[in-house]
Amino acid sequence: MRIVLIGSGNVATHLGKALQQSGHSIVQIYSRTQANAAELAEQLCATPIIDIAAMDTTANWYIFSVKDDALPPLIEHFPDVKGLVTHTAGSVPMNILSRFRHHGVFYPFQTFSKETAVDFKTIPLLVEGNSDQTTDTLLHLAREISDKAQLASSDQRGQLHIAAVFACNFVNHMYALADDLLKSHQLPFDLLIPLIKETAGKMENISPQLSQTGPASRNDQLIITKHLHSLEDHPHHKELYEILTDSILKKLNLQQ
Amino acid sequence: MRIVLIGSGNVATHLGKALQQSGHSIVQIYSRTQANAAELAEQLCATPIIDIAAMDTTANWYIFSVKDDALPPLIEHFPDVKGLVTHTAGSVPMNILSRFRHHGVFYPFQTFSKETAVDFKTIPLLVEGNSDQTTDTLLHLAREISDKAQLASSDQRGQLHIAAVFACNFVNHMYALADDLLKSHQLPFDLLIPLIKETAGKMENISPQLSQTGPASRNDQLIITKHLHSLEDHPHHKELYEILTDSILKKLNLQQ
Repeated sequence: MRIVLIGSGNVATHLGKALQQSGHSIVQIYSRTQANAAELAEQLCATPIIDIAAMDTTANWYIFSVKDDALPPLIEHFPDVKGLVTHTAGSVPMNILSRFRHHGVFYPFQTFSKETAVDFKTIPLLVEGNSDQTTDTLLHLAREISDKAQLASSDQRGQLHIAAVFACNFVNHMYALADDLLKSHQLPFDLLIPLIKETAGKMENISPQLSQTGPASRNDQLIITKHLHSLEDHPHHKELYEILTDSILKKLNLQQ
Repeated sequence: MRIVLIGSGNVATHLGKALQQSGHSIVQIYSRTQANAAELAEQLCATPIIDIAAMDTTANWYIFSVKDDALPPLIEHFPDVKGLVTHTAGSVPMNILSRFRHHGVFYPFQTFSKETAVDFKTIPLLVEGNSDQTTDTLLHLAREISDKAQLASSDQRGQLHIAAVFACNFVNHMYALADDLLKSHQLPFDLLIPLIKETAGKMENISPQLSQTGPASRNDQLIITKHLHSLEDHPHHKELYEILTDSILKKLNLQQ
């Protein structure tokens, strides 16, 4: 397929590379910023463009991979194209693209950073199309680059995105809060790495309900009280410690 | 060294195996429960005992590895021994063992489950002794089984334990909350695994402050509002979403 990428961020970069490696041609990269368009275009042997009017309207597939709030104005000014038009956003319904005859969603469910190489084969790719034919095409394309391609409705995708906020963004915040505490006692964050890896690694074999450990999970009020006392100098950490301990107690029906 | 393990739980099991593999002899395993003592004793070619009076008082090293609240009565009834006496608890000060001439702490900073094999070499081992000589001995022993042996005071150990509650126990709870949301939309938890691994894996290369992503980190009020609206049917998840989003905004000085 001849593909146009609209966007040059982390998702566009990794997705573009994966599609190219599976034999497709990335013909153009659109970005508002010349330097960004040029940088990714060079990596993918594509033509950088910064003007929507320069869009190749004969491509087979247009992939919008921009920030959610940048989508509506871009879609509005986009030329009428006959090819497939998709976006890669978790929390944006498919029907934002309804002015295009063949449209859908192609959502890679992973957090990307430009520096880190990713193995697309292991990344869940959630697709949705506006017709059975489009859905089939997208599922077929998704299976070319991922072993975990599957259908998901706009509603399911939205819930997945929220689940990811808990399992990724809030988890990272927990790491940051732990780092604060270690720093204030001259201890390196590295000490936590084995624990962090083990906690994440367990999820491949055991459900998070069954793997819950720690003072709250055994309702160890002695330790909980001791910890809260030790957190007197970190009132915000103390407050979160209390809230999350209560939440674990509630989940395990240990609330007193 | 001739070692006696007091306790037969996860820490005792993994620590006993690691010490045996590095050439020490585990001579006795004490547990209140005959079956537990016998099971671990068989694995380590040791003698199981359930009566403190049967304790070998000539061993070189006694390791208490029991629940925190089980420590005081055990210590009280323990025979006077000349060997080294340590515990493995994160949140218990060293001086709980002060009735023994040579005492200290030998704290492996990892979460253990009996089923999963662990590589002790990569686990931080934090030691503290009641004298320079004891500290040296413990550090030497710790280095035999771990590449990450280091000194830590009782105060530092306590803080580490609290940091671990954030980076391990609360993180696991975030996974469980995400699982709730997926289950209620007929989506498998497995979809989150790549994201969970990537989020944890990043910590080896980048600080949690720099790796924070998601709606809160870019102060994306549009998505935050959308997510809160979607969580109407999960009031507890909604409340935590709000609290943790505010906490991230506060941390990044994005609070409005």
